[in-house]
Amino acid sequence: SLGLYKAQVSHGIRELVLCKDKDGKVGVRVKPINNGIFVCLVIDKSPAALAGLRFGDQILQIDGNTVAGYTMDKVHNLLRKAGVNGISVVVRDRPFERTLTLHKDSTGHVGFQYKNGKIFSIVKDSSAAKNGVLTDHQLLEVEGQNVVGLKDKEILKIIESAGNVVTITVIPSFLYDHMIKQMNTSLIKDLMDHSNPTF
Amino acid sequence: SLGLYKAQVSHGIRELVLCKDKDGKVGVRVKPINNGIFVCLVIDKSPAALAGLRFGDQILQIDGNTVAGYTMDKVHNLLRKAGVNGISVVVRDRPFERTLTLHKDSTGHVGFQYKNGKIFSIVKDSSAAKNGVLTDHQLLEVEGQNVVGLKDKEILKIIESAGNVVTITVIPSFLYDHMIKQMNTSLIKDLMDHSNPTF
Repeated sequence: SLGLYKAQVSHGIRELVLCKDKDGKVGVRVKPINNGIFVCLVIDKSPAALAGLRFGDQILQIDGNTVAGYTMDKVHNLLRKAGVNGISVVVRDRPFERTLTLHKDSTGHVGFQYKNGKIFSIVKDSSAAKNGVLTDHQLLEVEGQNVVGLKDKEILKIIESAGNVVTITVIPSFLYDHMIKQMNTSLIKDLMDHSNPTF
Repeated sequence: SLGLYKAQVSHGIRELVLCKDKDGKVGVRVKPINNGIFVCLVIDKSPAALAGLRFGDQILQIDGNTVAGYTMDKVHNLLRKAGVNGISVVVRDRPFERTLTLHKDSTGHVGFQYKNGKIFSIVKDSSAAKNGVLTDHQLLEVEGQNVVGLKDKEILKIIESAGNVVTITVIPSFLYDHMIKQMNTSLIKDLMDHSNPTF
């Protein structure tokens, strides 16, 4: 499916063309980590979401400006000053993330426990154990659908509604915590693009 | 080349068959991180090196035992008790690592500075900046050749002897530091497999 295709972290480079909405917004927030610029918020239904920008993407260039070493404000200003249409953005696909494919057992479990989306325990000899799921990692996507800021119950529903094969996307917690630090939790919960990627 | 092919981090799962040398050694040391078992030393010319095990590989199973959650000692004991031949090891290809391809400019530079193999600065508008090389990352391979524990001068020689296109493999420093913690520096310098993967 398109969802699973998009779920695979390629670490490759792609170019997007963004525009602004009627309020002049692209719909993205960034955070500098290790002199790279990372996407930490993609507003639901915004031009950024529609163009396929995602949590964890590394922005390399905006309108020809290489942004390595830029501050958060410098990047946001660059986007503010950009035109309404045809903003060229070069991104590297989620460098800190990876995708794992798990299989449900006869009771429907894949074999890890999580709290607030953070994996804290691996069930012995489960699919998670056999496939190398790690603790102290944050669940970012299930079947290609962003789950950042969703309640654990909501994440469980998405896992349950998946077939016998479940694809998850994870990031080490210390990087996740750094990316959402200083961001209002309600912002993530209410505004983040959580749309189903198959539509 | 075979070197570049092997340099690409696939994050996929593969099975190796290991044996023991005349001293009964496989030639590998592991370290638990986040309940996963990671290869932190591969002895030069050992059965592990010849079978293609590499620094940063995650060991998932040994002779049918899923090792998630094991201690370092439990894994080393498992290897010690294994037969001389036909030790089955299932590994996931270097989950915390990724490969970047850079291009030399007219002066032969790719655009990052490093000390003790750790990247600390990115040159503005260089190939490193355009491709998203990050600071606080450790150089693990150049052109598929392990450079862990090598002197900066030796690493520079390998970069210089590469063509105009240079492939590097990196890992976030905090994970690297964790993996080599408590390991004798001379062990890494003198015993680690640094062989050229093309031969």
